[in-house]
Amino acid sequence: MKKSIGKVPGLAVILVGERRDSQTYVRNKIKACEEVGIKSIVTEFADGCTEDEVLNALSNYNQDSSINGILVQLPLPQHLDEGKILDAVSLEKDVDGFHPLNIGNLAMRGREPLFIPCTPKGCIELLIRSGVEIMGKNAVVIGRSNIVGLPTSLLLQRHHATVSIVHALTKNPEQITSEADIVIAAAGVANLVRGSWLKPGAVVLDVGTCPVDVSVDPSCEYGYRLMGDVCYEEAMRLASVITPVPGGVGPMTVAMLLSNTLDSAKRAYGFT
Amino acid sequence: MKKSIGKVPGLAVILVGERRDSQTYVRNKIKACEEVGIKSIVTEFADGCTEDEVLNALSNYNQDSSINGILVQLPLPQHLDEGKILDAVSLEKDVDGFHPLNIGNLAMRGREPLFIPCTPKGCIELLIRSGVEIMGKNAVVIGRSNIVGLPTSLLLQRHHATVSIVHALTKNPEQITSEADIVIAAAGVANLVRGSWLKPGAVVLDVGTCPVDVSVDPSCEYGYRLMGDVCYEEAMRLASVITPVPGGVGPMTVAMLLSNTLDSAKRAYGFT
Repeated sequence: MKKSIGKVPGLAVILVGERRDSQTYVRNKIKACEEVGIKSIVTEFADGCTEDEVLNALSNYNQDSSINGILVQLPLPQHLDEGKILDAVSLEKDVDGFHPLNIGNLAMRGREPLFIPCTPKGCIELLIRSGVEIMGKNAVVIGRSNIVGLPTSLLLQRHHATVSIVHALTKNPEQITSEADIVIAAAGVANLVRGSWLKPGAVVLDVGTCPVDVSVDPSCEYGYRLMGDVCYEEAMRLASVITPVPGGVGPMTVAMLLSNTLDSAKRAYGFT
Repeated sequence: MKKSIGKVPGLAVILVGERRDSQTYVRNKIKACEEVGIKSIVTEFADGCTEDEVLNALSNYNQDSSINGILVQLPLPQHLDEGKILDAVSLEKDVDGFHPLNIGNLAMRGREPLFIPCTPKGCIELLIRSGVEIMGKNAVVIGRSNIVGLPTSLLLQRHHATVSIVHALTKNPEQITSEADIVIAAAGVANLVRGSWLKPGAVVLDVGTCPVDVSVDPSCEYGYRLMGDVCYEEAMRLASVITPVPGGVGPMTVAMLLSNTLDSAKRAYGFT
Protein backbone atom coordinates (compact mmCIF):
# COMPACT_ATOMS: atom_id res chain seq x y z
CA MET A 1 0.00 0.00 0.00
CA LYS A 2 2.83 2.36 0.89
CA LYS A 3 4.61 1.42 -2.32
CA SER A 4 1.55 1.70 -4.54
CA ILE A 5 -0.17 4.83 -3.27
CA GLY A 6 2.34 6.33 -0.82
CA LYS A 7 -0.04 6.00 2.13
CA VAL A 8 0.10 3.99 5.34
CA PRO A 9 -2.86 3.23 7.59
CA GLY A 10 -3.14 5.41 10.69
CA LEU A 11 -4.48 4.41 14.11
CA ALA A 12 -5.29 6.86 16.90
CA VAL A 13 -5.59 5.59 20.46
CA ILE A 14 -7.20 7.50 23.32
CA LEU A 15 -6.15 6.37 26.77
CA VAL A 16 -7.70 7.88 29.89
CA GLY A 17 -6.36 7.27 33.38
CA GLU A 18 -3.71 5.00 34.80
CA ARG A 19 -5.20 1.48 34.81
CA ARG A 20 -2.30 -0.88 34.51
CA ASP A 21 -4.11 -3.39 32.33
CA SER A 22 -5.23 -0.65 29.93
CA GLN A 23 -1.69 0.66 29.72
CA THR A 24 -0.43 -2.83 28.90
CA TYR A 25 -3.01 -3.27 26.17
CA VAL A 26 -2.24 0.09 24.59
CA ARG A 27 1.51 -0.56 24.75
CA ASN A 28 1.00 -3.90 22.97
CA LYS A 29 -1.17 -2.34 20.30
CA ILE A 30 1.30 0.45 19.54
CA LYS A 31 4.20 -1.98 19.38
CA ALA A 32 2.26 -4.17 16.96
CA CYS A 33 1.49 -1.14 14.76
CA GLU A 34 5.20 -0.35 14.59
CA GLU A 35 6.01 -3.91 13.58
CA VAL A 36 3.66 -3.90 10.60
CA GLY A 37 4.12 -0.32 9.45
CA ILE A 38 0.88 1.24 10.70
CA LYS A 39 1.29 4.81 11.90
CA SER A 40 -0.02 5.22 15.43
CA ILE A 41 -0.69 8.13 17.77
CA VAL A 42 -1.67 7.91 21.42
CA THR A 43 -3.44 10.73 23.19
CA GLU A 44 -3.31 10.27 26.93
CA PHE A 45 -5.58 11.99 29.44
CA ALA A 46 -5.31 12.06 33.21
CA ASP A 47 -7.96 10.27 35.25
CA GLY A 48 -9.67 13.56 36.09
CA CYS A 49 -10.01 14.89 32.55
CA THR A 50 -13.32 16.27 31.27
CA GLU A 51 -15.65 14.68 28.73
CA ASP A 52 -15.15 17.67 26.44
CA GLU A 53 -11.40 17.13 26.31
CA VAL A 54 -11.92 13.55 25.13
CA LEU A 55 -14.68 14.56 22.69
CA ASN A 56 -12.44 17.28 21.22
CA ALA A 57 -9.62 14.83 20.64
CA LEU A 58 -12.09 12.44 18.98
CA SER A 59 -13.46 15.17 16.78
CA ASN A 60 -9.96 16.04 15.56
CA TYR A 61 -9.21 12.41 14.74
CA ASN A 62 -12.58 12.04 13.00
CA GLN A 63 -11.58 14.88 10.67
CA ASP A 64 -7.95 13.85 10.20
CA SER A 65 -7.76 12.00 6.87
CA SER A 66 -4.47 10.34 7.83
CA ILE A 67 -6.27 8.50 10.64
CA ASN A 68 -8.25 5.43 9.54
CA GLY A 69 -8.96 3.87 12.91
CA ILE A 70 -9.84 5.38 16.27
CA LEU A 71 -9.75 3.36 19.46
CA VAL A 72 -10.91 4.51 22.87
CA GLN A 73 -9.34 2.17 25.40
CA LEU A 74 -12.02 0.88 27.76
CA PRO A 75 -13.06 0.97 30.51
CA LEU A 76 -13.19 4.74 30.97
CA PRO A 77 -13.23 6.35 34.42
CA GLN A 78 -16.75 6.36 35.88
CA HIS A 79 -17.30 10.12 35.58
CA LEU A 80 -17.11 9.94 31.78
CA ASP A 81 -20.17 8.91 29.75
CA GLU A 82 -18.84 5.91 27.87
CA GLY A 83 -21.87 5.74 25.56
CA LYS A 84 -21.60 9.36 24.54
CA ILE A 85 -17.88 9.06 23.86
CA LEU A 86 -18.16 5.86 21.80
CA ASP A 87 -21.07 7.36 19.82
CA ALA A 88 -18.76 10.23 18.84
CA VAL A 89 -16.31 7.94 17.02
CA SER A 90 -16.94 8.17 13.29
CA LEU A 91 -18.59 4.92 12.11
CA GLU A 92 -16.03 4.63 9.30
CA LYS A 93 -13.14 4.74 11.80
CA ASP A 94 -14.73 2.64 14.57
CA VAL A 95 -12.16 -0.18 14.27
CA ASP A 96 -13.23 -1.59 17.65
CA GLY A 97 -16.77 -1.94 16.27
CA PHE A 98 -18.38 -0.71 19.51
CA HIS A 99 -20.82 1.80 17.99
CA PRO A 100 -24.42 0.64 18.66
CA LEU A 101 -25.28 0.86 14.96
CA ASN A 102 -22.40 -1.49 14.23
CA ILE A 103 -23.48 -3.85 17.04
CA GLY A 104 -27.05 -3.79 15.66
CA ASN A 105 -25.73 -4.75 12.23
CA LEU A 106 -23.64 -7.51 13.82
CA ALA A 107 -26.72 -8.86 15.60
CA MET A 108 -29.17 -8.80 12.70
CA ARG A 109 -29.31 -11.43 10.01
CA GLY A 110 -28.92 -10.14 6.48
CA ARG A 111 -26.88 -7.15 7.58
CA GLU A 112 -23.14 -6.60 7.64
CA PRO A 113 -21.26 -4.64 10.31
CA LEU A 114 -18.53 -2.32 9.02
CA PHE A 115 -16.10 -3.78 11.56
CA ILE A 116 -16.22 -6.95 13.63
CA PRO A 117 -15.07 -6.19 17.18
CA CYS A 118 -11.45 -7.32 17.59
CA THR A 119 -11.62 -9.84 20.44
CA PRO A 120 -14.61 -11.79 19.06
CA LYS A 121 -13.02 -11.70 15.61
CA GLY A 122 -9.79 -13.04 17.10
CA CYS A 123 -11.67 -15.84 18.87
CA ILE A 124 -13.39 -16.98 15.69
CA GLU A 125 -10.10 -16.76 13.79
CA LEU A 126 -8.46 -18.97 16.43
CA LEU A 127 -11.29 -21.51 16.18
CA ILE A 128 -11.17 -21.60 12.39
CA ARG A 129 -7.37 -21.86 12.25
CA SER A 130 -7.48 -24.66 14.83
CA GLY A 131 -9.91 -26.57 12.63
CA VAL A 132 -12.77 -26.27 15.09
CA GLU A 133 -16.17 -26.47 13.44
CA ILE A 134 -18.53 -23.81 14.80
CA MET A 135 -21.77 -24.44 12.90
CA GLY A 136 -24.31 -26.36 14.97
CA LYS A 137 -21.98 -26.61 17.97
CA ASN A 138 -23.08 -25.70 21.48
CA ALA A 139 -21.15 -22.65 22.56
CA VAL A 140 -21.22 -21.01 25.97
CA VAL A 141 -20.06 -17.44 26.42
CA ILE A 142 -19.31 -16.58 30.04
CA GLY A 143 -19.75 -12.85 30.60
CA ARG A 144 -21.88 -10.30 28.81
CA SER A 145 -19.78 -7.16 28.59
CA ASN A 146 -20.35 -4.81 25.67
CA ILE A 147 -16.75 -5.24 24.56
CA VAL A 148 -16.31 -9.02 24.67
CA GLY A 149 -19.22 -11.17 25.88
CA LEU A 150 -22.01 -9.54 23.89
CA PRO A 151 -20.28 -9.22 20.50
CA THR A 152 -18.76 -12.70 20.88
CA SER A 153 -22.18 -14.23 21.44
CA LEU A 154 -23.54 -12.37 18.42
CA LEU A 155 -20.61 -13.38 16.20
CA LEU A 156 -20.88 -17.05 17.20
CA GLN A 157 -24.54 -16.90 16.19
CA ARG A 158 -23.54 -15.49 12.81
CA HIS A 159 -21.39 -18.61 12.47
CA HIS A 160 -24.47 -20.71 13.31
CA ALA A 161 -23.42 -21.97 16.74
CA THR A 162 -26.11 -22.60 19.34
CA VAL A 163 -25.17 -20.00 21.91
CA SER A 164 -25.90 -19.74 25.64
CA ILE A 165 -24.85 -16.66 27.56
CA VAL A 166 -23.86 -17.26 31.18
CA HIS A 167 -23.39 -14.35 33.59
CA ALA A 168 -23.11 -13.41 37.24
CA LEU A 169 -26.84 -14.03 37.88
CA THR A 170 -26.89 -17.46 36.22
CA LYS A 171 -27.94 -20.05 38.77
CA ASN A 172 -26.15 -23.11 37.34
CA PRO A 173 -23.18 -21.82 35.31
CA GLU A 174 -21.16 -24.97 35.91
CA GLN A 175 -23.86 -27.26 34.54
CA ILE A 176 -24.58 -25.14 31.48
CA THR A 177 -20.90 -24.76 30.68
CA SER A 178 -20.28 -28.48 31.10
CA GLU A 179 -22.56 -29.18 28.13
CA ALA A 180 -20.67 -26.89 25.74
CA ASP A 181 -18.48 -27.92 22.83
CA ILE A 182 -16.94 -24.45 22.78
CA VAL A 183 -16.43 -22.33 25.91
CA ILE A 184 -15.42 -18.68 25.64
CA ALA A 185 -14.70 -17.26 29.08
CA ALA A 186 -14.84 -13.49 29.38
CA ALA A 187 -16.02 -12.84 32.90
CA GLY A 188 -12.93 -11.21 34.33
CA VAL A 189 -12.94 -13.48 37.39
CA ALA A 190 -9.63 -15.25 37.94
CA ASN A 191 -9.84 -19.06 37.86
CA LEU A 192 -13.65 -19.04 37.69
CA VAL A 193 -13.84 -21.98 35.27
CA ARG A 194 -12.59 -25.14 36.94
CA GLY A 195 -12.10 -28.57 35.46
CA SER A 196 -15.53 -29.67 36.65
CA TRP A 197 -17.10 -27.02 34.40
CA LEU A 198 -15.79 -28.65 31.23
CA LYS A 199 -16.90 -31.51 29.05
CA PRO A 200 -13.96 -33.70 28.03
CA GLY A 201 -12.84 -32.58 24.58
CA ALA A 202 -14.29 -29.08 24.87
CA VAL A 203 -12.58 -26.19 23.12
CA VAL A 204 -11.74 -23.46 25.64
CA LEU A 205 -10.85 -19.88 24.80
CA ASP A 206 -9.88 -17.80 27.80
CA VAL A 207 -10.47 -14.10 27.24
CA GLY A 208 -10.39 -13.24 30.93
CA THR A 209 -7.65 -10.93 32.05
CA CYS A 210 -7.56 -10.07 35.72
CA PRO A 211 -4.59 -8.03 36.83
CA VAL A 212 -3.38 -9.82 39.95
CA ASP A 213 -0.89 -8.08 42.20
CA VAL A 214 2.36 -10.03 42.41
CA SER A 215 4.64 -7.21 43.48
CA VAL A 216 6.52 -9.62 45.71
CA ASP A 217 7.55 -11.62 42.66
CA PRO A 218 10.69 -10.01 41.19
CA SER A 219 10.24 -11.93 37.93
CA CYS A 220 7.18 -9.82 37.06
CA GLU A 221 8.35 -6.72 35.25
CA TYR A 222 5.32 -4.51 36.02
CA GLY A 223 4.50 -5.72 39.55
CA TYR A 224 1.35 -7.55 38.44
CA ARG A 225 0.34 -10.46 36.29
CA LEU A 226 -2.68 -11.02 34.06
CA MET A 227 -4.64 -14.10 35.07
CA GLY A 228 -7.34 -15.77 33.01
CA ASP A 229 -10.89 -16.86 33.85
CA VAL A 230 -9.95 -20.49 33.39
CA CYS A 231 -7.97 -22.62 35.79
CA TYR A 232 -5.46 -23.66 33.15
CA GLU A 233 -3.91 -26.58 35.04
CA GLU A 234 -7.27 -28.30 35.50
CA ALA A 235 -8.71 -27.36 32.13
CA MET A 236 -5.73 -28.50 30.07
CA ARG A 237 -6.39 -32.09 31.17
CA LEU A 238 -9.89 -32.00 29.69
CA ALA A 239 -9.90 -29.54 26.81
CA SER A 240 -9.04 -30.57 23.27
CA VAL A 241 -7.90 -27.03 22.50
CA ILE A 242 -7.17 -24.35 25.07
CA THR A 243 -5.64 -20.88 25.03
CA PRO A 244 -3.37 -19.65 27.81
CA VAL A 245 -3.39 -16.23 29.51
CA PRO A 246 -1.37 -14.30 28.62
CA GLY A 247 -0.45 -15.21 25.07
CA GLY A 248 -3.69 -16.74 23.82
CA VAL A 249 -6.52 -14.52 22.68
CA GLY A 250 -4.74 -11.26 23.53
CA PRO A 251 -2.33 -11.28 20.58
CA MET A 252 -5.21 -12.24 18.26
CA THR A 253 -7.16 -9.20 19.47
CA VAL A 254 -4.22 -7.01 18.57
CA ALA A 255 -3.83 -8.70 15.18
CA MET A 256 -7.52 -8.13 14.41
CA LEU A 257 -7.18 -4.47 15.36
CA LEU A 258 -4.41 -4.14 12.80
CA SER A 259 -6.52 -6.00 10.26
CA ASN A 260 -9.54 -3.73 10.88
CA THR A 261 -7.34 -0.63 10.61
CA LEU A 262 -5.89 -1.86 7.33
CA ASP A 263 -9.38 -2.63 5.99
CA SER A 264 -10.51 0.84 6.97
CA ALA A 265 -7.56 2.46 5.20
CA LYS A 266 -8.20 0.41 2.08
CA ARG A 267 -11.82 1.54 2.13
CA ALA A 268 -10.85 5.17 2.66
CA TYR A 269 -8.30 5.18 -0.17
CA GLY A 270 -10.31 2.93 -2.48
CA PHE A 271 -7.33 0.53 -2.46
CA THR A 272 -8.09 -3.10 -3.21
CA MET B 1 -54.35 13.50 25.43
CA LYS B 2 -57.10 14.44 22.96
CA LYS B 3 -58.86 16.39 25.72
CA SER B 4 -55.74 18.15 26.98
CA ILE B 5 -53.92 19.09 23.80
CA GLY B 6 -56.40 18.25 21.03
CA LYS B 7 -54.08 15.66 19.47
CA VAL B 8 -54.36 11.90 18.96
CA PRO B 9 -51.48 9.54 18.19
CA GLY B 10 -51.17 8.53 14.54
CA LEU B 11 -49.95 5.20 13.17
CA ALA B 12 -49.08 4.56 9.52
CA VAL B 13 -48.88 0.98 8.25
CA ILE B 14 -47.27 -0.08 5.00
CA LEU B 15 -48.42 -3.42 3.66
CA VAL B 16 -46.87 -4.94 0.55
CA GLY B 17 -48.30 -7.96 -1.24
CA GLU B 18 -51.07 -10.38 -0.45
CA ARG B 19 -49.75 -12.69 2.30
CA ARG B 20 -52.75 -13.84 4.25
CA ASP B 21 -51.01 -13.82 7.61
CA SER B 22 -49.73 -10.27 7.04
CA GLN B 23 -53.22 -9.13 6.08
CA THR B 24 -54.60 -10.65 9.26
CA TYR B 25 -51.99 -8.93 11.39
CA VAL B 26 -52.58 -5.55 9.80
CA ARG B 27 -56.34 -5.93 10.12
CA ASN B 28 -55.97 -6.68 13.83
CA LYS B 29 -53.66 -3.72 14.37
CA ILE B 30 -56.00 -1.26 12.64
CA LYS B 31 -58.99 -2.56 14.56
CA ALA B 32 -57.10 -2.15 17.83
CA CYS B 33 -56.17 1.43 16.92
CA GLU B 34 -59.83 2.23 16.33
CA GLU B 35 -60.79 0.78 19.69
CA VAL B 36 -58.38 2.98 21.64
CA GLY B 37 -58.66 6.17 19.58
CA ILE B 38 -55.36 6.05 17.67
CA LYS B 39 -55.64 7.41 14.15
CA SER B 40 -54.38 4.87 11.61
CA ILE B 41 -53.62 4.89 7.88
CA VAL B 42 -52.73 1.88 5.76
CA THR B 43 -50.86 2.23 2.49
CA GLU B 44 -51.07 -0.95 0.47
CA PHE B 45 -48.80 -1.89 -2.40
CA ALA B 46 -49.12 -4.75 -4.85
CA ASP B 47 -46.60 -7.58 -4.71
CA GLY B 48 -44.75 -6.21 -7.74
CA CYS B 49 -44.29 -2.65 -6.52
CA THR B 50 -40.90 -0.94 -6.68
CA GLU B 51 -38.61 -0.07 -3.79
CA ASP B 52 -38.93 3.61 -4.66
CA GLU B 53 -42.69 3.52 -4.25
CA VAL B 54 -42.30 2.16 -0.73
CA LEU B 55 -39.47 4.56 0.12
CA ASN B 56 -41.55 7.51 -1.10
CA ALA B 57 -44.46 6.53 1.09
CA LEU B 58 -42.08 6.19 4.04
CA SER B 59 -40.54 9.57 3.36
CA ASN B 60 -43.96 11.20 3.39
CA TYR B 61 -44.86 9.57 6.69
CA ASN B 62 -41.49 10.54 8.17
CA GLN B 63 -42.31 14.18 7.43
CA ASP B 64 -45.97 14.04 8.45
CA SER B 65 -46.18 15.46 11.98
CA SER B 66 -49.57 13.82 12.58
CA ILE B 67 -47.91 10.39 12.26
CA ASN B 68 -46.06 9.21 15.38
CA GLY B 69 -45.47 5.60 14.45
CA ILE B 70 -44.59 3.90 11.16
CA LEU B 71 -44.83 0.17 10.71
CA VAL B 72 -43.68 -1.79 7.68
CA GLN B 73 -45.41 -5.17 7.86
CA LEU B 74 -42.83 -7.92 7.40
CA PRO B 75 -41.84 -10.02 5.61
CA LEU B 76 -41.54 -8.00 2.41
CA PRO B 77 -41.49 -9.64 -1.03
CA GLN B 78 -38.00 -10.92 -1.89
CA HIS B 79 -37.28 -8.32 -4.58
CA LEU B 80 -37.41 -5.49 -2.04
CA ASP B 81 -34.37 -4.70 0.12
CA GLU B 82 -35.80 -5.09 3.61
CA GLY B 83 -32.72 -3.56 5.27
CA LYS B 84 -32.82 -0.45 3.09
CA ILE B 85 -36.53 0.03 3.69
CA LEU B 86 -36.35 -0.43 7.48
CA ASP B 87 -33.36 1.93 7.64
CA ALA B 88 -35.51 4.60 5.99
CA VAL B 89 -38.02 4.67 8.87
CA SER B 90 -37.30 7.67 11.08
CA LEU B 91 -35.78 6.46 14.37
CA GLU B 92 -38.29 8.56 16.30
CA LYS B 93 -41.23 6.81 14.57
CA ASP B 94 -39.79 3.28 14.48
CA VAL B 95 -42.48 1.83 16.78
CA ASP B 96 -41.52 -1.71 15.75
CA GLY B 97 -37.98 -1.02 16.98
CA PHE B 98 -36.38 -2.82 14.01
CA HIS B 99 -33.80 -0.16 13.09
CA PRO B 100 -30.27 -1.57 13.64
CA LEU B 101 -29.32 1.38 15.85
CA ASN B 102 -32.30 0.59 18.05
CA ILE B 103 -31.38 -3.13 18.11
CA GLY B 104 -27.79 -2.19 19.02
CA ASN B 105 -29.08 -0.09 21.91
CA LEU B 106 -31.31 -2.97 22.98
CA ALA B 107 -28.33 -5.34 22.96
CA MET B 108 -25.82 -3.17 24.80
CA ARG B 109 -25.75 -2.78 28.56
CA GLY B 110 -25.99 0.78 29.80
CA ARG B 111 -27.94 1.92 26.74
CA GLU B 112 -31.65 2.39 26.20
CA PRO B 113 -33.50 1.66 22.96
CA LEU B 114 -36.09 4.25 21.92
CA PHE B 115 -38.64 1.46 21.37
CA ILE B 116 -38.70 -2.14 22.52
CA PRO B 117 -39.90 -4.37 19.64
CA CYS B 118 -43.56 -5.23 20.17
CA THR B 119 -43.56 -9.03 20.31
CA PRO B 120 -40.64 -9.35 22.76
CA LYS B 121 -42.14 -6.55 24.85
CA GLY B 122 -45.46 -8.42 24.85
CA CYS B 123 -43.74 -11.63 25.94
CA ILE B 124 -42.01 -9.96 28.88
CA GLU B 125 -45.25 -8.23 29.84
CA LEU B 126 -47.03 -11.60 29.84
CA LEU B 127 -44.31 -13.14 32.02
CA ILE B 128 -44.36 -10.27 34.49
CA ARG B 129 -48.16 -10.17 34.71
CA SER B 130 -48.23 -13.94 35.23
CA GLY B 131 -45.86 -13.54 38.16
CA VAL B 132 -43.01 -15.39 36.42
CA GLU B 133 -39.61 -14.38 37.70
CA ILE B 134 -37.16 -13.85 34.83
CA MET B 135 -33.91 -12.93 36.58
CA GLY B 136 -31.50 -15.85 36.80
CA LYS B 137 -33.90 -18.23 35.06
CA ASN B 138 -32.83 -20.41 32.14
CA ALA B 139 -34.65 -19.21 29.05
CA VAL B 140 -34.56 -20.82 25.63
CA VAL B 141 -35.58 -18.84 22.56
CA ILE B 142 -36.36 -21.06 19.59
CA GLY B 143 -35.77 -19.15 16.36
CA ARG B 144 -33.49 -16.23 15.57
CA SER B 145 -35.46 -13.98 13.25
CA ASN B 146 -34.72 -10.26 13.31
CA ILE B 147 -38.31 -9.53 14.26
CA VAL B 148 -38.91 -11.98 17.09
CA GLY B 149 -36.13 -14.40 18.06
CA LEU B 150 -33.24 -11.96 18.13
CA PRO B 151 -34.89 -9.06 19.99
CA THR B 152 -36.56 -11.50 22.40
CA SER B 153 -33.21 -13.06 23.31
CA LEU B 154 -31.72 -9.59 23.81
CA LEU B 155 -34.63 -8.41 25.94
CA LEU B 156 -34.55 -11.52 28.13
CA GLN B 157 -30.87 -10.80 28.74
CA ARG B 158 -31.74 -7.26 29.78
CA HIS B 159 -34.01 -8.87 32.36
CA HIS B 160 -31.04 -11.01 33.51
CA ALA B 161 -32.22 -14.39 32.27
CA THR B 162 -29.62 -16.92 31.18
CA VAL B 163 -30.49 -17.21 27.51
CA SER B 164 -29.83 -19.96 24.96
CA ILE B 165 -30.78 -19.44 21.33
CA VAL B 166 -31.87 -22.57 19.48
CA HIS B 167 -32.27 -22.56 15.69
CA ALA B 168 -32.58 -24.77 12.64
CA LEU B 169 -28.90 -25.83 12.80
CA THR B 170 -28.96 -26.72 16.50
CA LYS B 171 -28.08 -30.38 16.88
CA ASN B 172 -29.98 -31.15 20.11
CA PRO B 173 -32.84 -28.62 20.35
CA GLU B 174 -35.00 -31.00 22.36
CA GLN B 175 -32.37 -31.53 25.05
CA ILE B 176 -31.50 -27.83 25.37
CA THR B 177 -35.15 -26.82 25.51
CA SER B 178 -35.94 -29.47 28.12
CA GLU B 179 -33.62 -27.72 30.59
CA ALA B 180 -35.36 -24.35 30.31
CA ASP B 181 -37.53 -22.66 32.91
CA ILE B 182 -38.92 -20.35 30.22
CA VAL B 183 -39.40 -21.39 26.58
CA ILE B 184 -40.25 -18.83 23.92
CA ALA B 185 -40.98 -20.55 20.62
CA ALA B 186 -40.69 -18.39 17.53
CA ALA B 187 -39.55 -20.75 14.81
CA GLY B 188 -42.59 -20.68 12.57
CA VAL B 189 -42.72 -24.48 12.39
CA ALA B 190 -46.13 -25.89 13.34
CA ASN B 191 -46.09 -28.27 16.32
CA LEU B 192 -42.27 -28.29 16.50
CA VAL B 193 -42.16 -28.28 20.30
CA ARG B 194 -43.58 -31.53 21.66
CA GLY B 195 -44.21 -32.54 25.25
CA SER B 196 -40.85 -34.31 25.41
CA TRP B 197 -39.11 -30.95 24.83
CA LEU B 198 -40.43 -29.48 28.07
CA LYS B 199 -39.40 -29.66 31.69
CA PRO B 200 -42.42 -30.13 33.96
CA GLY B 201 -43.41 -26.71 35.26
CA ALA B 202 -41.82 -24.79 32.42
CA VAL B 203 -43.36 -21.53 31.25
CA VAL B 204 -44.14 -21.71 27.54
CA LEU B 205 -44.86 -18.73 25.29
CA ASP B 206 -45.78 -19.69 21.75
CA VAL B 207 -45.02 -16.94 19.26
CA GLY B 208 -45.14 -19.23 16.25
CA THR B 209 -47.81 -18.53 13.69
CA CYS B 210 -47.93 -20.80 10.70
CA PRO B 211 -50.82 -20.25 8.35
CA VAL B 212 -52.15 -23.75 7.74
CA ASP B 213 -54.61 -24.28 4.90
CA VAL B 214 -57.94 -25.52 6.22
CA SER B 215 -60.15 -24.49 3.30
CA VAL B 216 -62.17 -27.66 3.71
CA ASP B 217 -63.26 -26.50 7.15
CA PRO B 218 -66.28 -24.18 6.78
CA SER B 219 -65.84 -22.90 10.34
CA CYS B 220 -62.65 -21.06 9.32
CA GLU B 221 -63.63 -17.65 8.05
CA TYR B 222 -60.54 -16.99 5.93
CA GLY B 223 -59.85 -20.51 4.64
CA TYR B 224 -56.78 -20.94 6.84
CA ARG B 225 -55.86 -21.16 10.46
CA LEU B 226 -52.82 -19.92 12.39
CA MET B 227 -51.00 -22.72 14.18
CA GLY B 228 -48.34 -22.32 16.82
CA ASP B 229 -44.86 -23.81 17.20
CA VAL B 230 -45.95 -25.72 20.29
CA CYS B 231 -48.07 -28.85 20.37
CA TYR B 232 -50.56 -27.34 22.79
CA GLU B 233 -52.28 -30.59 23.80
CA GLU B 234 -49.02 -32.19 24.91
CA ALA B 235 -47.47 -29.04 26.37
CA MET B 236 -50.45 -28.05 28.50
CA ARG B 237 -49.97 -31.20 30.56
CA LEU B 238 -46.43 -30.16 31.51
CA ALA B 239 -46.27 -26.38 31.44
CA SER B 240 -47.08 -24.27 34.48
CA VAL B 241 -48.05 -21.38 32.21
CA ILE B 242 -48.71 -21.63 28.46
CA THR B 243 -50.10 -19.32 25.80
CA PRO B 244 -52.38 -20.59 23.04
CA VAL B 245 -52.24 -19.74 19.32
CA PRO B 246 -54.15 -17.74 18.33
CA GLY B 247 -55.05 -15.53 21.27
CA GLY B 248 -51.84 -15.70 23.32
CA VAL B 249 -48.90 -13.52 22.38
CA GLY B 250 -50.55 -12.03 19.27
CA PRO B 251 -52.90 -9.65 21.12
CA MET B 252 -50.02 -8.61 23.39
CA THR B 253 -47.97 -7.69 20.33
CA VAL B 254 -50.79 -5.48 19.14
CA ALA B 255 -51.20 -3.92 22.59
CA MET B 256 -47.47 -3.11 22.73
CA LEU B 257 -47.66 -1.50 19.30
CA LEU B 258 -50.38 0.80 20.60
CA SER B 259 -48.29 1.48 23.69
CA ASN B 260 -45.19 2.32 21.62
CA THR B 261 -47.25 4.58 19.34
CA LEU B 262 -48.70 6.40 22.35
CA ASP B 263 -45.21 6.78 23.87
CA SER B 264 -43.94 8.18 20.59
CA ALA B 265 -46.80 10.69 20.38
CA LYS B 266 -46.18 11.78 23.98
CA ARG B 267 -42.52 12.30 23.15
CA ALA B 268 -43.33 14.25 20.00
CA TYR B 269 -45.83 16.54 21.73
CA GLY B 270 -43.88 16.80 24.99
CA PHE B 271 -46.95 15.41 26.76
CA THR B 272 -46.37 13.66 30.06
